[in-house]
Amino acid sequence: MADPILHAVRTVPNKTAVVCGNIRLTYSEMFERCQRIASAMASIGMQRGDRIALLAANSHQYLEYYQALPAAGFVVVPLNTRHAEPELEYALRDGGVRVLITDRDPGGLADCVERVISLPDEYESLIAQSNNDVALGKDIGENDLAGLFYTGGTTGASKGVMLSHRNLLANTFHTLGFLQPRRDSAYLVMAPLFHAAGSTGVLASVWTGGTQVVVPAFTPGEVLDLIEREKITDTLGVPTMIAAMTELQLAEPRDISTLRLLAHGGSPIASEVVRRAHRAFPTTELIHVYGCTETAPLATGLRDEQLLTDDPRIRSCGQAIPGVAVRIVDDANAELPIGAVGEVAIRGANVMQGYWNKPEQTGEVLQHGWYLTGDLGSMDDEGNVYLVDRKKDMIISGGENVYSTEVEDVLYTHPAVLEAAVFGVPNEQWGEAVHAVVVLRNEVTAEALIAHCRESLGGYKVPRSIDFHTGELPKSGPGKILKRELRTPYWEGGTRQIN
Amino acid sequence: MADPILHAVRTVPNKTAVVCGNIRLTYSEMFERCQRIASAMASIGMQRGDRIALLAANSHQYLEYYQALPAAGFVVVPLNTRHAEPELEYALRDGGVRVLITDRDPGGLADCVERVISLPDEYESLIAQSNNDVALGKDIGENDLAGLFYTGGTTGASKGVMLSHRNLLANTFHTLGFLQPRRDSAYLVMAPLFHAAGSTGVLASVWTGGTQVVVPAFTPGEVLDLIEREKITDTLGVPTMIAAMTELQLAEPRDISTLRLLAHGGSPIASEVVRRAHRAFPTTELIHVYGCTETAPLATGLRDEQLLTDDPRIRSCGQAIPGVAVRIVDDANAELPIGAVGEVAIRGANVMQGYWNKPEQTGEVLQHGWYLTGDLGSMDDEGNVYLVDRKKDMIISGGENVYSTEVEDVLYTHPAVLEAAVFGVPNEQWGEAVHAVVVLRNEVTAEALIAHCRESLGGYKVPRSIDFHTGELPKSGPGKILKRELRTPYWEGGTRQIN
Repeated sequence: MADPILHAVRTVPNKTAVVCGNIRLTYSEMFERCQRIASAMASIGMQRGDRIALLAANSHQYLEYYQALPAAGFVVVPLNTRHAEPELEYALRDGGVRVLITDRDPGGLADCVERVISLPDEYESLIAQSNNDVALGKDIGENDLAGLFYTGGTTGASKGVMLSHRNLLANTFHTLGFLQPRRDSAYLVMAPLFHAAGSTGVLASVWTGGTQVVVPAFTPGEVLDLIEREKITDTLGVPTMIAAMTELQLAEPRDISTLRLLAHGGSPIASEVVRRAHRAFPTTELIHVYGCTETAPLATGLRDEQLLTDDPRIRSCGQAIPGVAVRIVDDANAELPIGAVGEVAIRGANVMQGYWNKPEQTGEVLQHGWYLTGDLGSMDDEGNVYLVDRKKDMIISGGENVYSTEVEDVLYTHPAVLEAAVFGVPNEQWGEAVHAVVVLRNEVTAEALIAHCRESLGGYKVPRSIDFHTGELPKSGPGKILKRELRTPYWEGGTRQIN
Repeated sequence: MADPILHAVRTVPNKTAVVCGNIRLTYSEMFERCQRIASAMASIGMQRGDRIALLAANSHQYLEYYQALPAAGFVVVPLNTRHAEPELEYALRDGGVRVLITDRDPGGLADCVERVISLPDEYESLIAQSNNDVALGKDIGENDLAGLFYTGGTTGASKGVMLSHRNLLANTFHTLGFLQPRRDSAYLVMAPLFHAAGSTGVLASVWTGGTQVVVPAFTPGEVLDLIEREKITDTLGVPTMIAAMTELQLAEPRDISTLRLLAHGGSPIASEVVRRAHRAFPTTELIHVYGCTETAPLATGLRDEQLLTDDPRIRSCGQAIPGVAVRIVDDANAELPIGAVGEVAIRGANVMQGYWNKPEQTGEVLQHGWYLTGDLGSMDDEGNVYLVDRKKDMIISGGENVYSTEVEDVLYTHPAVLEAAVFGVPNEQWGEAVHAVVVLRNEVTAEALIAHCRESLGGYKVPRSIDFHTGELPKSGPGKILKRELRTPYWEGGTRQIN
């Protein structure tokens, strides 16, 4: 992962690499900062292969972290800022993280690591004190571990996805082959950098010598202002961001004529949002992308989505991108014919090395060179992928993965709850909203249960709505709750109103 | 190498893959032909790893050969049609080639292989008789050998460059990252397909679902007609092709407005040719590319060359492309500072596995992960590479380095000089003496040429002797003067007296 910055500092040393608030850094300035922070980590005793976590909002330091630390042989552990403290603790302990860099009060997290470095103050003083004597990229093997990306959760369900240098660089090239960014691109970093897409987005921009404009916290007004002021050419967000930008642009238009690509992923998007986004950004290509942390991340993409609003393909997440193979398989891992629903499987140099310290779970999902996503879908005769369900009932709400079992576990800890089933229901704003069906032991309000969940779950995992069920929940032979049976009515015709 | 065609046949099955004369094939038609020719090779007894040579002009069958045979586990050996029969015999025997596919009378070459397949008749009848029952790409490892590319020569000097599937696919992605071809590209295949650039050009076009238009034998008129008729967007040639196309386009203009990229490589280009090419193709980007068979092949590129005709960078072959690292090193393989002349070294996943059956020569050029090109050059502060000479063409006279190209450039500025080649010859006093072989346009004495050189060259660089040559200087395939052939007689026995 040293290669892109080494390439950029050689070919475009004086070009603006990053804009973040009032800070503007050229490639040679950013490179020197990368050398210094890598050197600082060595000077505080970090060894090759040691894990260094970052828990923070987007910043230019985040870009340095992604580039410098793996390039110096360390392993990055970018933490999801929306995870609850117990989830973060789990990741720090499971990953054996030695140092945590963070822009917040670490609280109890400080006990999980040897050292906390505060952002920006302590980080900047380390930069100031250090030398640029580290040869980035020296003796790094392409199959060395570059990053551990935690999927969330406090139990065994949370896994550290191991991505090597090659995984991340391969997907960067796949993405370049797919999106074909121009020279002189200006990429707006508005999606959170802690996702795997963060690292490949950074690398793709650096390879092509582009400028990255970092948004610390998304607001549609700031984003539109930056597009106008910095002449942004490309950006990527989740559907809720696209919708908010669209509505504001229609109400208070800025000059967004430089914007060439507006990509979104993380959850399904409504056709109406695409239609309105096309009205708001008439000269911009809209692209739906799909991937997983395990595939580093990009696997498929639907280009020129704005031209497909009256086409059935609008419901797909597009075709495999160059370098990535996608197929639909049955439980025996045999490819299914066109139109048949099965599990989405992905192969390519981007597929992860496995889950950290979890050989069994790794073996379940990596089979014969393919990664089994757990997503159910079908494919049309052009290879467009249509996702229909999560094999394991995982909910994707506002771009974040919610594992229903984790929410159910919390509900079960409430004394009034006898049975609980959690699943996603259609929601215009979030794609899916977390919904629970509960059988009560004794009287309690939905509000009280929601408050109970909020005590131990990240906000996006807390049920938005709860329905009470009378009598036992429907079960399969071995006593498993038939969640799909409960879930179906909410999805039929898309008409059912939630609360 | 099965991946691009598998991707294309899934995503754009009905799109035109190739145009060759009156033949037009969609991706699904081309894919079926690939399956059938691979199946035919298995049915005549070819085993995994067996070498199958092709000696022929460009054709759509050549594209099938590149895609189908490695994808079925065979090794392609594309032979240079300009090599003499003894060179071809050497390659067939050295490579242990079992089958030769050719469009010419094989003559004595038939004795070097088990079987000759004639193009197109026998090839087409094999396709017609075969099944599409081969699963292309099955059980192929990325480090398996995909192709052997012979560098020419009849002695140990001729080497079979071993390129793996990964080498060729990696450079395909590097090229995509650099050239950023658009979707709906139409690529004109006018350079000979037997070069390594042929295979990566094919793969890059197939990855992006583009159309390839194949020119069997270059003539500027046919090429310009095809650009107009097939709405060509990209092409690559050698400087002599670019010059011929330019002159004809200026004299008899066609509609070439679709042409986006016109790349050239293989030998240096004169600024005046670039200037005139820009006049002939005013909306086209001119690109100078540099690479070696050993680097599969592309290593550097100079973009927007048409804007640099009055810039010193016009003499460079540009910057390393994304994914490829280039540096200038001394004899101890240490990197040299900006501006210093040394050997060009290249690193990346594109660098060959080695020379077939030549571990010693492999060890000489592959060191610490870098390929030593044997080219001498320097680098400016933006990483642009300036080639000055082949390492073995550099003359050391009286302890001073003389770069033959520098002396040749001065000779070419004399109006009487049509062609010039400069090299060192044995000299008791100086070790080597600078010697020139010149083809004259009109009469001039050696003394007058030496005086001309003295006006712009340091004394030790001025030729001590000049021989006049009648008729064209001997040249290799891509139009490079065969300096070694000219040089050899002067060194035989070390006795030959100069002038």
